[in-house]
Amino acid sequence: MATTEANDTIRNGVDTVTLFATLDAVKQQPEAARFQFRVTNRWVSGTHSRGHVQSFFGVGQEQEREKAFVLDADHPVVLVGRDNGPTPAEYLLAALASCLTAGIGNIAAARRIDLESVESTVEGDIDLNGILGLADDVRNGFQQIRVRFTVRGDATPEKLREIVEQSRARSAVYDVLTNGVPVSIDVTTS
Amino acid sequence: MATTEANDTIRNGVDTVTLFATLDAVKQQPEAARFQFRVTNRWVSGTHSRGHVQSFFGVGQEQEREKAFVLDADHPVVLVGRDNGPTPAEYLLAALASCLTAGIGNIAAARRIDLESVESTVEGDIDLNGILGLADDVRNGFQQIRVRFTVRGDATPEKLREIVEQSRARSAVYDVLTNGVPVSIDVTTS
Repeated sequence: MATTEANDTIRNGVDTVTLFATLDAVKQQPEAARFQFRVTNRWVSGTHSRGHVQSFFGVGQEQEREKAFVLDADHPVVLVGRDNGPTPAEYLLAALASCLTAGIGNIAAARRIDLESVESTVEGDIDLNGILGLADDVRNGFQQIRVRFTVRGDATPEKLREIVEQSRARSAVYDVLTNGVPVSIDVTTS
Repeated sequence: MATTEANDTIRNGVDTVTLFATLDAVKQQPEAARFQFRVTNRWVSGTHSRGHVQSFFGVGQEQEREKAFVLDADHPVVLVGRDNGPTPAEYLLAALASCLTAGIGNIAAARRIDLESVESTVEGDIDLNGILGLADDVRNGFQQIRVRFTVRGDATPEKLREIVEQSRARSAVYDVLTNGVPVSIDVTTS
């Protein structure tokens, strides 16, 4: 596998041999890259709900983690919740930060650049007059999201910026947030 | 406050008096509804990063939770990660489930309907040939998201469905996911 030459090390915590081998494997079997991610959620009380993240489909078969990740969500007290977890809107921002950051880790490793640190802040502006139904011209969701990265590593500022740009260009969450996605909602009441 | 008549009870864990008082207060001071949510994130290793959710701005001032919520994210082993947390894509699905569910709790309470249970499954289909850069015609993000709710409560199926529909119509996360949002990314390298 020519692409793995001189990448036979763990860099940035990324097993680059496995990374390139995975890429090569998917090139041979594109259908292995068809994934389905899932979350189950159960209402607890008020605005508090609890999500579970465990199984997914990928690499041609069902994948089951040994243990579920549990995600409590709630509204803060000023929004008549009880602050039992991050707000749904904050989970959305966390998804964006973590997606871009995972990409930075992988891409830097693939480019043989050692990262020292990657820190980010994600801010989202929202006018709740929208979801409260008090202003028809105000959207329900964020009006703007700003991401600020500080990246340190063994490369020129130019190359570090290129890594962030490549991560943006290949980010699943960035794509969904900026371009939107069809969402269907089905309800059973029995 | 006419809107609070006969709502002086806790219903579904929602303090409806406070809920309607909050609505009335925002009607008087629309700028109180301008919020900014934030997440900070720090790369740990590989595709593993750790987010912190603590402060936000709202009701005219900075709001600081006593303790930060910590959100680890990672890729699963089959995607060359170490499964230290949900994937970013799963956080996105969790955001959607919890936003719609919080709305259902509030709206049912406002309509004086007692909920028994609200369960949901959210699935997102994604073809990783996109983010792997192996197929130009495949998008990076989810191609489709499906939400399935099972709602039980003290109301007709029709009224329960209307609650879900109203929650969708006023969901911040549903709006962002279906309509998109401008995202800016700024990078500092020093």
